[in-house]
Amino acid sequence: MNPQKLTDKQITEAIAQLPEWKVVNGKLNRAFKFDSFVEAFTFMTKVAFAAEKMVHHPEFFNVYNRVVIDLTTHDVDGISNLDIDLAQKINDL
Amino acid sequence: MNPQKLTDKQITEAIAQLPEWKVVNGKLNRAFKFDSFVEAFTFMTKVAFAAEKMVHHPEFFNVYNRVVIDLTTHDVDGISNLDIDLAQKINDL
Amino acid sequence: MNPQKLTDKQITEAIAQLPEWKVVNGKLNRAFKFDSFVEAFTFMTKVAFAAEKMVHHPEFFNVYNRVVIDLTTHDVDGISNLDIDLAQKINDL
Amino acid sequence: MNPQKLTDKQITEAIAQLPEWKVVNGKLNRAFKFDSFVEAFTFMTKVAFAAEKMVHHPEFFNVYNRVVIDLTTHDVDGISNLDIDLAQKINDL
Repeated sequence: MNPQKLTDKQITEAIAQLPEWKVVNGKLNRAFKFDSFVEAFTFMTKVAFAAEKMVHHPEFFNVYNRVVIDLTTHDVDGISNLDIDLAQKINDL
Repeated sequence: MNPQKLTDKQITEAIAQLPEWKVVNGKLNRAFKFDSFVEAFTFMTKVAFAAEKMVHHPEFFNVYNRVVIDLTTHDVDGISNLDIDLAQKINDL
Repeated sequence: MNPQKLTDKQITEAIAQLPEWKVVNGKLNRAFKFDSFVEAFTFMTKVAFAAEKMVHHPEFFNVYNRVVIDLTTHDVDGISNLDIDLAQKINDL
Repeated sequence: MNPQKLTDKQITEAIAQLPEWKVVNGKLNRAFKFDSFVEAFTFMTKVAFAAEKMVHHPEFFNVYNRVVIDLTTHDVDGISNLDIDLAQKINDL
């Protein structure tokens, strides 16, 4: 269950399976736009439930109907398998 | 109900009554630290209810137990009375 | 802005425009079923935002993926125009 | 990790350690009253995070500033150790 740091090659391969995600400043990054603040905030709430259950938390940025999520793993000082898992769960929402 | 842009003098006076808030990059800014992710996220949820009711929304940044809030008013291209009101409501939470 | 108590005839006409709502025990009632607890709870959160903005709150019942909402207006001891408005907002979600 | 049905004696002993909880209609039951709807709803949100993490969900009833929680375990047709654990987590909030 310990996170494992991914190599650049592993990250590139994983992102190929994760539509809309890219690496920005060393973090897995995706931007979202919704119809309203309430839609944006309740989307973040769904991500928060998934994150709390994994015990692995994202960086959230929100203003009005826009949300930006950055994923990285502090313990490995980089992107790990947990970030890929959470990104996949977010795409499945 | 239209927002009114505040002068630097008005902002300085308002902040004097708003413990923990300061101006950063032209926005009203305050940072918060909680005991857990769930405490941080449900605090944001309370702010979200207040903001939606005012129809005036903050910029949220969250990672784990930390929250940063920035307040500005797009329509006046600066800090308005609405930002002061929302900051006061947040301090009252 | 004061709520107005509706007659039985007005309620019958209003419900005709509100798919899935009926009167149960003198309250506007609708049951919902979702794919998961998280979907059910974040649906309630959206309703909660709408209700708080109207300053008119529903009765919520939730267990796992099921939600039941009852609407009534304490101040008029019956169903009011506010209940119809909130039911319409919920259907629009 | 499978839930274990508790005997009446075990339930009585467990409740002695759980201030404010009692058995009503065969379920662990506690009522709460808050200062506002937003306080009540965000309290439910905290409980929802704990429940989703345990994969064990309560029955929620909410109207305005009041919340009632009932805990039971469908799989054992009664009150289990999971209900006691969740009641304890709720009291710790």
